Amino acid sequence: MAQVADFEQMWRDLVPIGRSASSGGYFRQPWHAAELELRAWFREAATVRGLEVEEDPFGNLVAWWSPPAVEVRGAPATSLETPGAVLTGSHLDSVLDGGAYDGPLGVVSSFAALDLMRERGVVPARRLGVAAFVEEEGSRFGRACLGSRLAVGATTWEDARELTDRDGVRLGDVVAGPADGARSTLLDGVATYVELHVEQGRGLVDLDAAVGVHDGIWPHGRYRYDIAGRADHAGTTRMEDRADPMLTFAMTALAANKQARVQGQRATFGRIDVRPNGTNAVPSHVTGWLDARAESDAALASLVGEIERQATERAERDGTTVTVTAESVSGEVAFDTALRDELAGRLGGVPVLPTQAGHDAGILQEAGIPTAMLFVRNPSGVSHSPYESAEMADCLAGVAALADSLTGLVSGEAPA
Amino acid sequence: MAQVADFEQMWRDLVPIGRSASSGGYFRQPWHAAELELRAWFREAATVRGLEVEEDPFGNLVAWWSPPAVEVRGAPATSLETPGAVLTGSHLDSVLDGGAYDGPLGVVSSFAALDLMRERGVVPARRLGVAAFVEEEGSRFGRACLGSRLAVGATTWEDARELTDRDGVRLGDVVAGPADGARSTLLDGVATYVELHVEQGRGLVDLDAAVGVHDGIWPHGRYRYDIAGRADHAGTTRMEDRADPMLTFAMTALAANKQARVQGQRATFGRIDVRPNGTNAVPSHVTGWLDARAESDAALASLVGEIERQATERAERDGTTVTVTAESVSGEVAFDTALRDELAGRLGGVPVLPTQAGHDAGILQEAGIPTAMLFVRNPSGVSHSPYESAEMADCLAGVAALADSLTGLVSGEAPA
Repeated sequence: MAQVADFEQMWRDLVPIGRSASSGGYFRQPWHAAELELRAWFREAATVRGLEVEEDPFGNLVAWWSPPAVEVRGAPATSLETPGAVLTGSHLDSVLDGGAYDGPLGVVSSFAALDLMRERGVVPARRLGVAAFVEEEGSRFGRACLGSRLAVGATTWEDARELTDRDGVRLGDVVAGPADGARSTLLDGVATYVELHVEQGRGLVDLDAAVGVHDGIWPHGRYRYDIAGRADHAGTTRMEDRADPMLTFAMTALAANKQARVQGQRATFGRIDVRPNGTNAVPSHVTGWLDARAESDAALASLVGEIERQATERAERDGTTVTVTAESVSGEVAFDTALRDELAGRLGGVPVLPTQAGHDAGILQEAGIPTAMLFVRNPSGVSHSPYESAEMADCLAGVAALADSLTGLVSGEAPA
Repeated sequence: MAQVADFEQMWRDLVPIGRSASSGGYFRQPWHAAELELRAWFREAATVRGLEVEEDPFGNLVAWWSPPAVEVRGAPATSLETPGAVLTGSHLDSVLDGGAYDGPLGVVSSFAALDLMRERGVVPARRLGVAAFVEEEGSRFGRACLGSRLAVGATTWEDARELTDRDGVRLGDVVAGPADGARSTLLDGVATYVELHVEQGRGLVDLDAAVGVHDGIWPHGRYRYDIAGRADHAGTTRMEDRADPMLTFAMTALAANKQARVQGQRATFGRIDVRPNGTNAVPSHVTGWLDARAESDAALASLVGEIERQATERAERDGTTVTVTAESVSGEVAFDTALRDELAGRLGGVPVLPTQAGHDAGILQEAGIPTAMLFVRNPSGVSHSPYESAEMADCLAGVAALADSLTGLVSGEAPA
């Protein structure tokens, strides 16, 4: 099958881009060299397929496959006159030292699914687009799903352009953004979105299935803990005279882990910034970022509240102060029920499970675009890590499932 | 008194150099702009006093006041023919975001003491040098008292030149170092060293005294804890499937604090490096630096051993591994007893106390140069912090005490 060779070739092309020789992980931060190379690759993959690439002012990309032109009153119909478009795709950026699959698998599978549909002779009655949303991980500017949020208008450019990366670079200085008052028209006319993604846990491993359908996204949030103490000499200051914010942080990190285990949810402190960060100085400030996720909005509020309560209690003992700022909180997302059932049925009753990870699919669903997610088995169960993996056979099963799903959706029978 | 005005003027000259406008603390890392400005200031202060500046290949500076030349067989005597020299001084560098006094107070007080001795008509029978040792804090290349260690040969250049700073810059690329096989001759002929320093605790505050004498330095060390886990998605990885090195670090930081309190010693984790340090990723690696100090070598070994034991135990529970590397360990230092008693007596029975901080004085004492330390009251009791402080009256009492001490030592009555 041509599409097998095509998938494998595309995958080989992407493997070296942004890969760390020491860890084997990926560093594909938006608008840095590796990600720019991925964008060039995307344009090339679209061009060789005769797809028309559209880029919005935020850097989101869509490669369009349009229905054959129909003569209407002597002039070719524009694609806007066709029924609502179907969008698939994912993102190309990675977390710092991330895996190869999270994001790119969805983009590559989309192109491969399109190849398979053409091989099968599918003639679309609707436009079909392959999307690559920008800064999905929030690993550079700290806002997850930033590209899709901007595309649907959930985040305004006036707000986003002031975001800065770790080097103090403003987003507004990296990407032009729209003219005053303008917005992205990239998703105008999109009636359906289907995103394929590598699984980020062991759900399909446990169920012995290659492909599944997500029915929703757990609510999740990022909370910045600013802990202020007092810098002191690490040798001469009596233990009882200190106000050491590292202790408050340490207890909070342990409390977050324990509460998540007790409540059956997820809580992680994976990022920290210490000042002055010197070996022989008690720190003056420690900032830690809590990533928390739970099965319901109420469970998330309970989890986050309990962690903050314990942090504040410990701060009183340490003589420090804690300020908690919610940097981003996303409520529970339920994907479109009819679409989910249609895809699960078409794919022969594959497993239906929730995901604990945020995705652009959640942003589009919340913006009113009926959305579904397919996911592919990950034997390691690990993601956001060089150990993230997927078997080639499962990837190809994912391509086939995506092609089957999209074929139904572009055939004209799908909801307009 | 001229020396009051001189002291105040010198202090005013130094106040703005390397000071952070936001924190009020100092960033005076060796061979960066602020420290180079301090070195230029030192040379200027020496020059206006007619002192001869000598710099060794490592960047250590001494400004020499030599006895009046005596005609010997028709030729002026060289200073090497005078009896053993007396050295005073301290260092100019700071920890990251440190205080104004730690280091510079000793250098400024040395110049002011010299001014006061001249005002009193003291004529030295020995050379008197004002020293500024480089990289005392180890804040750039990670090795405390690096300059004095190199000057006495306790650290070899072959070893030191490979040290790198946080930006990966080699020490050997910052400073030329000696020709192959050569060493520093800066301290040749030095018979005595007296260092004045701001107190880094509350000893003198509690005793209501402006000035004191240190009798020794607690043993202390820096230990790097490399904790390896497995990077994972912070949302999708079940809590029980993780190997999170942040948890091992957090427990270790709390255990270090508790053990130091229980054993009456000092232990601090003030520096940490997390990879990949992303909000939505369980870290793959956490490196923490333990600063530990204790009243005896045995107490230090017990403290450090217990912390490592608890870290290893926790690592087993977390599925992580801990590797502990002693980056530098300094044994107990007892300053010269005769010199200590002489100074304490000369200064009218000021308090005699140990210090928990490492100092160049400890390096010189260990290298066989009889050494003493004077220290000046610090109302905040805080050091390595913008809150470090000293009253002007106490600083001037320190200058007078240093001048009195040095006057006795350079008079010819002191040990050769």
